[in-house]
Amino acid sequence: MGKSDEPGNLEARIRSSFARQGLMSTLGATLGDITHGAVDIFLPPSPAISQQHGFVHAGAISAIADTAAGYAALSTMAPGKGVLTTEFKINLLAPAVGSRFVARGKVIKAGRTLTLAQTEVFAEQEGPPRLIAFLTATLMAIEGRNGISD
Amino acid sequence: MGKSDEPGNLEARIRSSFARQGLMSTLGATLGDITHGAVDIFLPPSPAISQQHGFVHAGAISAIADTAAGYAALSTMAPGKGVLTTEFKINLLAPAVGSRFVARGKVIKAGRTLTLAQTEVFAEQEGPPRLIAFLTATLMAIEGRNGISD
Amino acid sequence: MGKSDEPGNLEARIRSSFARQGLMSTLGATLGDITHGAVDIFLPPSPAISQQHGFVHAGAISAIADTAAGYAALSTMAPGKGVLTTEFKINLLAPAVGSRFVARGKVIKAGRTLTLAQTEVFAEQEGPPRLIAFLTATLMAIEGRNGISD
Amino acid sequence: MGKSDEPGNLEARIRSSFARQGLMSTLGATLGDITHGAVDIFLPPSPAISQQHGFVHAGAISAIADTAAGYAALSTMAPGKGVLTTEFKINLLAPAVGSRFVARGKVIKAGRTLTLAQTEVFAEQEGPPRLIAFLTATLMAIEGRNGISD
Repeated sequence: MGKSDEPGNLEARIRSSFARQGLMSTLGATLGDITHGAVDIFLPPSPAISQQHGFVHAGAISAIADTAAGYAALSTMAPGKGVLTTEFKINLLAPAVGSRFVARGKVIKAGRTLTLAQTEVFAEQEGPPRLIAFLTATLMAIEGRNGISD
Repeated sequence: MGKSDEPGNLEARIRSSFARQGLMSTLGATLGDITHGAVDIFLPPSPAISQQHGFVHAGAISAIADTAAGYAALSTMAPGKGVLTTEFKINLLAPAVGSRFVARGKVIKAGRTLTLAQTEVFAEQEGPPRLIAFLTATLMAIEGRNGISD
Repeated sequence: MGKSDEPGNLEARIRSSFARQGLMSTLGATLGDITHGAVDIFLPPSPAISQQHGFVHAGAISAIADTAAGYAALSTMAPGKGVLTTEFKINLLAPAVGSRFVARGKVIKAGRTLTLAQTEVFAEQEGPPRLIAFLTATLMAIEGRNGISD
Repeated sequence: MGKSDEPGNLEARIRSSFARQGLMSTLGATLGDITHGAVDIFLPPSPAISQQHGFVHAGAISAIADTAAGYAALSTMAPGKGVLTTEFKINLLAPAVGSRFVARGKVIKAGRTLTLAQTEVFAEQEGPPRLIAFLTATLMAIEGRNGISD
């Protein structure tokens, strides 16, 4: 990308990439803090992302959790590299009820080809945030393939 | 629900439940065939469900895959029961590129409390459908809890 | 390895590799049928592989299931390549009680770098075999690295 | 079990249960520290638990990781309850090479029916321990069923 990978640049890369994700905008998700190896994503509840019982759909929770893990992994890579999720598992620990959901992604182990990241998803409401989901994901680093970067 | 669980009724229950899922409507997903232990969901690509490289977002693929698994499990249960996903793993085998995506959920083993289901997601385009994702999910049967059913 | 990959050679490669697995011998596991993309492993119960309630330990079931998936993947690769498991999930559907356990591994999708395989584990006793575990695994192809092959 | 669940009793329950696991003895695994919600298991390498390239077999690493997660979950439960693993995923981050392996299980979220636990497995050798595997497991609490406890 022609620029050095200073912290400000890292954040700009990720914010620009996130803005290109149609799904995140459609779900109403927004980026929170971005640091080396950790990225937060916020999601407010709405009928547009519900399941049949009125909770937020596990698919929406999974989408922000996977995305937070992916950007956490990307935040540890050199500019010009991209990541693709090869697999994730998510444990859904409680129905997604709350005034806002926060997905906190972080890298567990960064590797040359494969990186493992985890995301904890918390539901905010009265009282302390409650852990409602836990994801682990494998991200594959991609370089110069099909024009994929960031 | 006061009715017997004849095939037509099963399909009606699932179509009614699916129609209450705001997320499926938001993503543009629709129900296909419903049989005892197997449910199909279709998803057309659109910029509204993309990730940053223009492919359909893994989160959207996961959402239809999880939903197909859930309804496949529900299709084996008595009326009045509901299901919640407790965990799923999805392996993403190829970028989600195609003219339409089909998630084919089916029950692997139905249990009293926990049911295991799998979903294969295929991308349609020219030629035979390509397998792009494979999910396994654990569904928990819920009865008379918080008014959850179907 | 200097030989062509004819069926007989494939089977010989896998039987030789399996024989070098100390753990399989320690557990009492043996190889069954080997075909292109599918491998069976047998395991008899014994106190040496039990958990605290007297069932066969999930760790022993997982070990044969992972191994069957790995050899199923290897069976689709050119001679000289090896495989390493990068991740697996196993759903344990019933306690491991039976007169013999059979792990049937098969390839779901073979890829250049990553291959997805599944293994069904059945318990044999009176009546038809019962499905007691279901595994999906990602296998990474390795070539010329640290002398890893087969 | 007729005794209160004081810390010493908790440790005694788990040590007694572990001693009944034939597989742990067969693998050469031993218990380390036990606290409320966290349990360590040690495993020395040996040819008896190897895979075909001479590394310790992923099945042996998985077995101690699953067991550490299970006892971490059990450590949070009342006496007389038992746990069964319903599923686990393990990411294998590096070949199992080292002078000793340590599986550190801990509870992520304890629930009435299902508990989520994680285990990090480290390889010890020169230098700081290296993380070689990461497992998440769902444990189901069992009470008064088939005489299962601890």
